[in-house]
Amino acid sequence: MTALSWPPLRDALVGDEPYGAPQLDVPVALNTNENPYGPSEAAAADIAEAVREAALGLNRYPDREFTALRHALTDYLNTDGGQGLTPDMVWAANGSNEVMMQILQAFGGPGRTAISFAPTYAMYPEYARNSLTEWVAGRREDDFSLDLEAARRMVEEVRPAVVLLPSPNNPTGTALPPEAVSVLCEAAGNGIVVIDEAYGEFRREGVPSALELIGTHRNLVVTRTMSKAFALAGARVGYLAARPEVVDAIRIVRLPYHLSAVTQAAALAALRHAPELLGKVDDLRAERDACVEWLRAQGLEVADSDANFVLFGRFADRHAVWQGLLDAGVLIRETGPEGWLRVSVGTPAEMAAFRDALTTVMADPSTTVKENR
Amino acid sequence: MTALSWPPLRDALVGDEPYGAPQLDVPVALNTNENPYGPSEAAAADIAEAVREAALGLNRYPDREFTALRHALTDYLNTDGGQGLTPDMVWAANGSNEVMMQILQAFGGPGRTAISFAPTYAMYPEYARNSLTEWVAGRREDDFSLDLEAARRMVEEVRPAVVLLPSPNNPTGTALPPEAVSVLCEAAGNGIVVIDEAYGEFRREGVPSALELIGTHRNLVVTRTMSKAFALAGARVGYLAARPEVVDAIRIVRLPYHLSAVTQAAALAALRHAPELLGKVDDLRAERDACVEWLRAQGLEVADSDANFVLFGRFADRHAVWQGLLDAGVLIRETGPEGWLRVSVGTPAEMAAFRDALTTVMADPSTTVKENR
Repeated sequence: MTALSWPPLRDALVGDEPYGAPQLDVPVALNTNENPYGPSEAAAADIAEAVREAALGLNRYPDREFTALRHALTDYLNTDGGQGLTPDMVWAANGSNEVMMQILQAFGGPGRTAISFAPTYAMYPEYARNSLTEWVAGRREDDFSLDLEAARRMVEEVRPAVVLLPSPNNPTGTALPPEAVSVLCEAAGNGIVVIDEAYGEFRREGVPSALELIGTHRNLVVTRTMSKAFALAGARVGYLAARPEVVDAIRIVRLPYHLSAVTQAAALAALRHAPELLGKVDDLRAERDACVEWLRAQGLEVADSDANFVLFGRFADRHAVWQGLLDAGVLIRETGPEGWLRVSVGTPAEMAAFRDALTTVMADPSTTVKENR
Repeated sequence: MTALSWPPLRDALVGDEPYGAPQLDVPVALNTNENPYGPSEAAAADIAEAVREAALGLNRYPDREFTALRHALTDYLNTDGGQGLTPDMVWAANGSNEVMMQILQAFGGPGRTAISFAPTYAMYPEYARNSLTEWVAGRREDDFSLDLEAARRMVEEVRPAVVLLPSPNNPTGTALPPEAVSVLCEAAGNGIVVIDEAYGEFRREGVPSALELIGTHRNLVVTRTMSKAFALAGARVGYLAARPEVVDAIRIVRLPYHLSAVTQAAALAALRHAPELLGKVDDLRAERDACVEWLRAQGLEVADSDANFVLFGRFADRHAVWQGLLDAGVLIRETGPEGWLRVSVGTPAEMAAFRDALTTVMADPSTTVKENR
């Protein structure tokens, strides 16, 4: 055993930085794909009352199986793509982050591989790193779509234990074609295929949810979150649907009592307000489509989006554009392939501020837009 | 790569069961070392009001660095053993469980070893398993104390990346001798020494907290929890104090936004009620000492306890005793070395129910108490 350095970080972590977008106090925050519409006073009061009741018993550990919350999440999923899901097919944790970590802790690990197709969510390789799973990234096409035949061949060749595929993809907004889930589930054999539908509720009409296929493929896991469409990023509730034996396997690696009584109470109360909390999804989709159109009218390249964000570019110096917007009080995200930027869809007023700021920045002669490919 | 079985659990997990004591609905629950005294109506209302305010902004992600909570935890620690701790020396997560996992994810891993001395907390080997850290367990003496010289030699020989030592120890209640922390921190070189003070507030007079030594040993980490003395098991807030560079290293493996805005608000409000929530610690210590005395008067072996639980025995058939108590409505924990049982310290009424039930069970001629060693 070699001597430990100080501090004794394991080698794979040395030089790494904690993941996360800058948390800056700005007038218009369009950088982390939050829902711009907060819960109403009535919903907040209901959440508080649920927490007050729970608080009287906080000296006791929470229900380790969060039974009531699993029932409520199941009921919700069966209204949005799920077909006959039961509570033993649903699991939750502190954000999709923890759900994904649990999946990789159960099914990944040394000698096993997780795969995705870049550009994609920047946390995936971190989950792999933290769970000691080998990470392989295939490529998406120039328009960020997936060449399904190439993806199938790659899965058959690499034999990954876990395939991680967001639909819509982050940061590009690209949904998977309907046949992709079945093709990849079959190609993966006994490997787990995770379709990450964190932004699933924002999908355009006619785009199916992978939830429909859980009855068909035993190795399919569909993840969701309350952070985006549900406007509950601060509550940290991610969840998944899968076959009961997959959920059972995940229970082995979960830390006991991982979901607090406060989180369970708050999430349950929020689910009772689902119609209100989800009520802005249609507005946000319309705002997104308008944003795509407007950006294209400025001569920019824009990825089709089924999410609540839009990837656009390409700029010779994207950091200068990002900084110019920030100087105008509009914070977006410098992410995705070189030259591209991602803007979250906010309120009409926030989007107007974004358009104004971008118009000003692009009028600066130093802002070069690259020619379309 | 070998073919994956179904479900494709990694080999080290096959056959494992999810960790956790049975969650049974019984009149007297003395099995998970909970504080029997819940928050008052006033404290619960304050927690709820803090959550109501936070709920209005739940569409936004929480403060990733939980700045206000770190300040409040720092202030508290500086009143209970900490000396000049600053917020950059304090870290929190969803229960000590997650704190420990983060420590092992940062400093453990393949090719590295974590060590403790058995009998000790049953979750430690699970943290090691989940972080792919090799697990080595030394032994405690027959009276559950640590032979410090033997422990020092073992640490120098094994060169662990992480030493995990609870003080008081769970499930035995045994505190470390004051010199142990310094001896082991020196023996560990650049390895991290975690003194797990989950039950630290229950220590008997004259027993120091390891917090006093953070200024002396850069490799010392002291963990605490709000679950026990603070009566907040349901809120899942564990925390640690260490040198800033150790905290910084842990930030690399934490999942972004791991502490929800609801958890941060609830914990902050609870800390404002610290005098009330901690107000029963002295009563519980007196009740514990009375319990030790009573059990010894019954002719049982009883471990000295600095915690809010008591380990006693030894029974020829401890499961029969456990079942007999459960049949009388008193749930305790079948844990520790063969023949021993652990009872958490409850209210005076709960302890009376425990004594009555145990008296009845021991009157049964089939309950054999083993002769003292």
